Amino acid sequence: MATNNKSIDWQFTGSEAAKEAAATSLGTYTSSIYALCDPNGKPILPPRSDNLETSHTAEKAVVKAVLCGTGNAYSPSIGVPAAKRAVAEFMNQKLTKKLTPDDVFMTVGCKQAIELAVDILAKPNANVLLPSPGFPWDEVRSIYRNLEVRHYDFLPKQNFEIDFKSVREKVDENTFAIFIINPHNPNGNTYSEAHLKQLAELAKELGIMVVADEVYRWTIFGSNPFIPMGTFSHIVPVVTLGSISKGWNVPGWRTGWLALHDLDGVFKNTKILQAAREFLEINSKPPTVIQAAIPDILEKTPKEFFDNRGAFLKDKVEFGYSKLKYIPGLTCYMKPESCTFLWTELDVSSFVDIEDDIDFCKKLATEENLVVLPGIAFSQKNWLRHSIDMETPILEDAFERLKSFCDRYSKASLKVVN
Amino acid sequence: MATNNKSIDWQFTGSEAAKEAAATSLGTYTSSIYALCDPNGKPILPPRSDNLETSHTAEKAVVKAVLCGTGNAYSPSIGVPAAKRAVAEFMNQKLTKKLTPDDVFMTVGCKQAIELAVDILAKPNANVLLPSPGFPWDEVRSIYRNLEVRHYDFLPKQNFEIDFKSVREKVDENTFAIFIINPHNPNGNTYSEAHLKQLAELAKELGIMVVADEVYRWTIFGSNPFIPMGTFSHIVPVVTLGSISKGWNVPGWRTGWLALHDLDGVFKNTKILQAAREFLEINSKPPTVIQAAIPDILEKTPKEFFDNRGAFLKDKVEFGYSKLKYIPGLTCYMKPESCTFLWTELDVSSFVDIEDDIDFCKKLATEENLVVLPGIAFSQKNWLRHSIDMETPILEDAFERLKSFCDRYSKASLKVVN
Repeated sequence: MATNNKSIDWQFTGSEAAKEAAATSLGTYTSSIYALCDPNGKPILPPRSDNLETSHTAEKAVVKAVLCGTGNAYSPSIGVPAAKRAVAEFMNQKLTKKLTPDDVFMTVGCKQAIELAVDILAKPNANVLLPSPGFPWDEVRSIYRNLEVRHYDFLPKQNFEIDFKSVREKVDENTFAIFIINPHNPNGNTYSEAHLKQLAELAKELGIMVVADEVYRWTIFGSNPFIPMGTFSHIVPVVTLGSISKGWNVPGWRTGWLALHDLDGVFKNTKILQAAREFLEINSKPPTVIQAAIPDILEKTPKEFFDNRGAFLKDKVEFGYSKLKYIPGLTCYMKPESCTFLWTELDVSSFVDIEDDIDFCKKLATEENLVVLPGIAFSQKNWLRHSIDMETPILEDAFERLKSFCDRYSKASLKVVN
Repeated sequence: MATNNKSIDWQFTGSEAAKEAAATSLGTYTSSIYALCDPNGKPILPPRSDNLETSHTAEKAVVKAVLCGTGNAYSPSIGVPAAKRAVAEFMNQKLTKKLTPDDVFMTVGCKQAIELAVDILAKPNANVLLPSPGFPWDEVRSIYRNLEVRHYDFLPKQNFEIDFKSVREKVDENTFAIFIINPHNPNGNTYSEAHLKQLAELAKELGIMVVADEVYRWTIFGSNPFIPMGTFSHIVPVVTLGSISKGWNVPGWRTGWLALHDLDGVFKNTKILQAAREFLEINSKPPTVIQAAIPDILEKTPKEFFDNRGAFLKDKVEFGYSKLKYIPGLTCYMKPESCTFLWTELDVSSFVDIEDDIDFCKKLATEENLVVLPGIAFSQKNWLRHSIDMETPILEDAFERLKSFCDRYSKASLKVVN
């Protein structure tokens, strides 16, 4: 039988379409670095963490939705009405110009919100400005399918503010939007009200809208309060992207949203609302059972949950930041005030036998059983993203391993030894 | 301020890309017909149903996954390992040639499994054979993005068996697969072992694989037992698509799978496995919290749940089928033995002032407050799909409204009146 079948010329083949995109995705980078660690030798594999405290409110809300059957139906493609209303009401707490539930669309995590924004907003031959560093490559790739991507820069020595000069240089008549991440992963800063206002005015001058990824708005621990970009939707049209995964520690629940902060009806006039409905009609939808839990999640989570989480992260950031000062070859320009990472510049020239950020991360994983992610995964070569979201003893261990590795490869240390 | 902004030429516009696809999606047909009903006049709006009994096992499994945190992590893109293993073990109960967990990929409902199958299997300029009637247009559209679709037919008077003659006529050297739905929605039949074996041998002769959508395998109530297509994977390469939504009454939970039943390593040799991994790496993932519940759902649901559900549906089918005999202009060729619908041919010529199936459904909704779906939504014009998945008093009411409507528009009835 086997021989018989082998002679058949089956009319199918593996697609290569996704190959290039998958090769540069964050998941692929992460997996390939994980694979270099020794599972029997106490590996430190962030962001994998067993003891991360999930929000009990979120858990209870989903349990309630399951047991009461409130999430048990195919949802309208634009989202479960109660979830849309809850997101609008939550965001309105910080907004003067209020959203209605009709302005909110539920998506499969923030990633689909990004795809939705690109799909509905871009016109043919359009280009878009993305932050560098910023979205992981798998997200960038989903944007690439539809339009040209251009990167704008930051000013590391000015608290990672947006380099408006680089924005002006990259914009042309086919640019339709600037994407921002606020609070910014991986830079770790939160934009001030004044900076966001300047951005809004610049965008207005350039005739482009602002799309703001605000998934980290709940993990803030610096002195800058979080200001939603929607605050400036009286100046420029704004699209906000969000999800519950970061704020409530529920990675993998795949429920996010996109909100349209209209300005003088331009979204309605340009048929954006209609296009959003059409995109969601033919694409994957977030699970109804979690959508149905969104009102409880957004309304009932006690402030203490976020306060405790912020205090925990602040403590870890302080620790990591203080340790970095004694590690050669890595520069952390700013102590983060949000998110869950330290972001450092890697000075390859100060090391022996380190080719680039990927080489650094691979050797670190192999030799020290520690995972740090290469900047190239966030489109910035020769930077590193260090997770600090772990208990102190593990974090101490992680930074000892990092120091030991850097000391070993550092030209300065080698000189001392010689 | 408003006047000021209106003079700005914003550089974005609504995308029209999804417009055509969305206009023909099942959701759009359903919504537009719902909209014609009077919410204050006791509308009958299947498949919306408040009192559908969800599987308690499924509910408990998700609650457990939430509270134990087992689903609380970003999952590997190919799926949570425990879910992949559970699907393989479940399917293996009916298979001689066993699947391994590596052969299973978790997807966002069965719809993404269809997209995955098309994406990984098709080569450039390929075409695919789909059943007519069969997949709703929104699913067909997601296939259209990538390749040419050709439809094969059924033999309504031979229990809706596949018309193999039409399969032969449609295949050419660029055809890579035939998609089947078994049990078949909307035809309502379940293929016999002999018929599936014939199909496998025909496919082998033609050098094409068989992709089997088996989401309705748990709602069977006729004399034909369900035979998985994987049974014949020693003859032809088979891909199986599944999900929990229909069997457990959990629409909207968005968790399905694709399983590769290999034959002599052709999937490995043609890089299909690798392509599946790559597709899933860059696309939306099903919620981990439900993936983590899949083992309990598949292993612990008591047989009585499915038996009771089958008995319920059989009773409703008998009722509806008996009523149809007295309704003019509609022909039901076979009493369904699976799924939750009656599928009837609409003889437009026997009615006055009924243009086609869409016109019939719109007038029925407007005048009788009853939703029946037009065949065109399943790519077969002038047929109708009647849901029977409701309690008897409502079903009686539905068929009285249908009869009243058909009597009113029937040429035969009009003659009698005159």
